[in-house]
Amino acid sequence: MSSYYERHVFFCLNQRSNGEGSCAEHNAQAAFDHCKARVKAEGLAGAGKVRVNKAGCLDRCAGGPVAVVYPEAVWYTFVDHSDIDEIVERHIKRGEVVERLQLPPDVGR
Amino acid sequence: MSSYYERHVFFCLNQRSNGEGSCAEHNAQAAFDHCKARVKAEGLAGAGKVRVNKAGCLDRCAGGPVAVVYPEAVWYTFVDHSDIDEIVERHIKRGEVVERLQLPPDVGR
Repeated sequence: MSSYYERHVFFCLNQRSNGEGSCAEHNAQAAFDHCKARVKAEGLAGAGKVRVNKAGCLDRCAGGPVAVVYPEAVWYTFVDHSDIDEIVERHIKRGEVVERLQLPPDVGR
Repeated sequence: MSSYYERHVFFCLNQRSNGEGSCAEHNAQAAFDHCKARVKAEGLAGAGKVRVNKAGCLDRCAGGPVAVVYPEAVWYTFVDHSDIDEIVERHIKRGEVVERLQLPPDVGR
């Protein structure tokens, strides 16, 4: 059975209230909103295509803000909207991994 | 590069306030809590192993409550804790798809 979404992107939007850092303090919501709007504007959203999803803590906080693209299991970090645009253009549309934005494999909580 | 998590499970915990149904009204939080506790108790949680994650709306509301296991992209629905136990025992631990709990492919929003 094929995957319900060709690509399923999860953004950590976790907000901590205990003083520790969290993705929400690094503009994760704005990045999510921008990615979701871009995917929708390009006509890529929906079943058989792409879903941009809110997620709770993905537990790789040291690299935050973070997002992960499945089923490829490619993890990204990003600074601004142009980074998100590059992930949409290259990875989400063409299936290319954006190596310069990949989260290093040893980055954890 | 191998996947940061061997299996990454996302539970929809979306709560709607507009009167439409949502996974949160179908005990999604309790299922998530039970799954997370079981995975932790079995020593399966963490990098290189399993992450049980909160997610926002996965947009397959008609089949709610729903969860998806990546990188396999296998979608489940469930009724009680014994269903979650079966997903943990068979899919998360042994990599078997629990066919009786799979979401039919045409279930959408």
